[in-house]
Amino acid sequence: MTTQVLHLNKGAERRIRSGHHWIYSNEIDLGKSPLQAFEPGSIANAVDFAGKALGSFMVNPQALICARLVSRQMDRSLSSSVLKNRLKQALALREQCFEQPCYRWVYGDSDGLSGLVIDRFNDVLTVQVSTAGMEQRLPVILEHLQRLVQPRGILVKNDGKMRASEGLDNYVEVAFGEVPEQVELIENGVRFLAPLMTGQKTGWFYDHRPNRLLAAQWAKDRTVLDVFSYVGGWGITAAALGASAVTCVDASQLALQGVMANAELNNCAHRVDTLAGDAFAVLERLHAEKTRFDVVIVDPPAFITRRKDMAAGERAYKRLNEMAMKLVSHGGILVSASCSMHLDNERLRDMIRSAGRKLDRHVVILAEGGQGADHPVLPAVPETRYIKAIFAQISQNF
Amino acid sequence: MTTQVLHLNKGAERRIRSGHHWIYSNEIDLGKSPLQAFEPGSIANAVDFAGKALGSFMVNPQALICARLVSRQMDRSLSSSVLKNRLKQALALREQCFEQPCYRWVYGDSDGLSGLVIDRFNDVLTVQVSTAGMEQRLPVILEHLQRLVQPRGILVKNDGKMRASEGLDNYVEVAFGEVPEQVELIENGVRFLAPLMTGQKTGWFYDHRPNRLLAAQWAKDRTVLDVFSYVGGWGITAAALGASAVTCVDASQLALQGVMANAELNNCAHRVDTLAGDAFAVLERLHAEKTRFDVVIVDPPAFITRRKDMAAGERAYKRLNEMAMKLVSHGGILVSASCSMHLDNERLRDMIRSAGRKLDRHVVILAEGGQGADHPVLPAVPETRYIKAIFAQISQNF
Repeated sequence: MTTQVLHLNKGAERRIRSGHHWIYSNEIDLGKSPLQAFEPGSIANAVDFAGKALGSFMVNPQALICARLVSRQMDRSLSSSVLKNRLKQALALREQCFEQPCYRWVYGDSDGLSGLVIDRFNDVLTVQVSTAGMEQRLPVILEHLQRLVQPRGILVKNDGKMRASEGLDNYVEVAFGEVPEQVELIENGVRFLAPLMTGQKTGWFYDHRPNRLLAAQWAKDRTVLDVFSYVGGWGITAAALGASAVTCVDASQLALQGVMANAELNNCAHRVDTLAGDAFAVLERLHAEKTRFDVVIVDPPAFITRRKDMAAGERAYKRLNEMAMKLVSHGGILVSASCSMHLDNERLRDMIRSAGRKLDRHVVILAEGGQGADHPVLPAVPETRYIKAIFAQISQNF
Repeated sequence: MTTQVLHLNKGAERRIRSGHHWIYSNEIDLGKSPLQAFEPGSIANAVDFAGKALGSFMVNPQALICARLVSRQMDRSLSSSVLKNRLKQALALREQCFEQPCYRWVYGDSDGLSGLVIDRFNDVLTVQVSTAGMEQRLPVILEHLQRLVQPRGILVKNDGKMRASEGLDNYVEVAFGEVPEQVELIENGVRFLAPLMTGQKTGWFYDHRPNRLLAAQWAKDRTVLDVFSYVGGWGITAAALGASAVTCVDASQLALQGVMANAELNNCAHRVDTLAGDAFAVLERLHAEKTRFDVVIVDPPAFITRRKDMAAGERAYKRLNEMAMKLVSHGGILVSASCSMHLDNERLRDMIRSAGRKLDRHVVILAEGGQGADHPVLPAVPETRYIKAIFAQISQNF
């Protein structure tokens, strides 16, 4: 069987040639290559308007992103051996970066595996699939995972929002071995238990790892407020690495139980306490009570998940950062984190600036951080870059 | 004597209100406040077109930047006690960030001391003054420095390009005590000798400290090429922290002698060698010889010092990054550094992207770094933000 060909509209090749990995359905010349002729998950060669080669792509005729790069060369497939090589190459990078087997092993397009995300928690793996092509190849992938690292268990957590647009049902299942309710992991030398089944997303967010370490370094012997703490990724790292007192704030009692369990695990429960409630309400109350902290960390859920949420999302970030800045003691640090891809560094930096002006503070930025190396960024694919953290010192104005 | 008043043109207050610290001479209402009536170095109150207060500014009627923020409040001076307090506040931040007394103690506007830069090398200080106002106050500043940290010696290195525009002569002199030819410093736990008198700028660049550490972490047990090495800031850090072999490239034989001296100091001379010559020529030759390195670091001098150098400068960065990328072995790391304020992160990232496309490599960005915390950034003053480093993994393309 010869490989099918996807013909692109004039000019539509430009983004791909510049390094992007995705073709949108409105970029296809439907006259020359009607999409309904392609099977979901099949591999096709893509060519530009003049017929010049663009590479091999995994196709889903039903999806808005109808083709995803497999190779810059033509006639390449996502065969079992190609999948194995990419899993191995992704593993080699992580093993080079981290001492413990606790990381995002596969980060989609950045690892040449569009639609696949794998997190590793020592000997337990979670797998998330978001494309029809990867779903078809999941059995082969699961076999390779077992052979490559001999896990105790693999959880397939296929409940992402993107699946519906690829025509896939949602489900969560133990695909291999035994998967505990909670997994143990080590990040920056600090131990954590994360709830795989009941937790947010894959149960743990490795993406802020370098920023959590940096925050902890500034928090030594100091008081810390960790807002939107979840199970304590920031706060417990700070406490375990020497903060004098840490207060974690979250709306979920379950998350705060996780905070205290993680504090126990690191023998620092005597320096950790929790406050349950809406973050904005808690910040308001702490301010009214004139409570101040040397380090205030805000790492909210994505306030901007779609472009159309931009204005409302920016208002929320702005309000949050202003309220947080008010709670920083003179000379202390505000750690302002964001996981909204649509909010760029420039904008977040500008919010810190404007909060400083509004509150009449002297604000300087000591560092800016991005996502950890297990979430590598494709420079031509802005969608792969979403984490940012700004570390600002807040003082009384001159 | 009543404080003189600087009247701003309509709209010219906006930048100051948004957080910037500088007023340009063409923003002054010369009818209401003729600049020649102001003494260089004097303090004036600035008001907007409507007469509303903007704060206290240090004036130099001869300079393009004719006024620099002293305080957001009116009628404030840069008195001896104000100077002392700002020096102390700046010191407190550095002491919080660094274990060793080796850092940029004062970074101009970011520390409320526009026109003043102080570097500390244990018990030796270098001071750079770039404004008439700070020059007048230098004797008082020198006294405070002596009292605050009891240095062995203070070198005033007043040979910067900005001085002429402030009507100041250039000179270099030992202002206090004894200043050795070379100072010893510790950065990231690594020891260095830096030439104060004969070296570049203040003799040492603390600004890339966090990026040098990050590069060294990826360089463990690996081979490293350090291009534009100067006395080995990047290369010796990598070698001392475990790189298997480091080659430093610089046009200056004197700098390369410094590299080897620093290698000796850290007992890693057996893993360090040097190549003298023009960086581009050396990269060309290494490529022709098919020499490859696991980590290639390029930290060139600013190719863009003025806006009008933009096009030529960008071509130079592009060419350098392409040549460097060619020398990275499969799966290795390119560390692309820049100290050009005019080249923003976005552009540098895009150069890495385009080099990857041109050379048909799979390129992912593992981290992006900025300047160290002893070079704090004022979010409203883009001129204070200039350092960037991109850490990219370079692999054969899929």
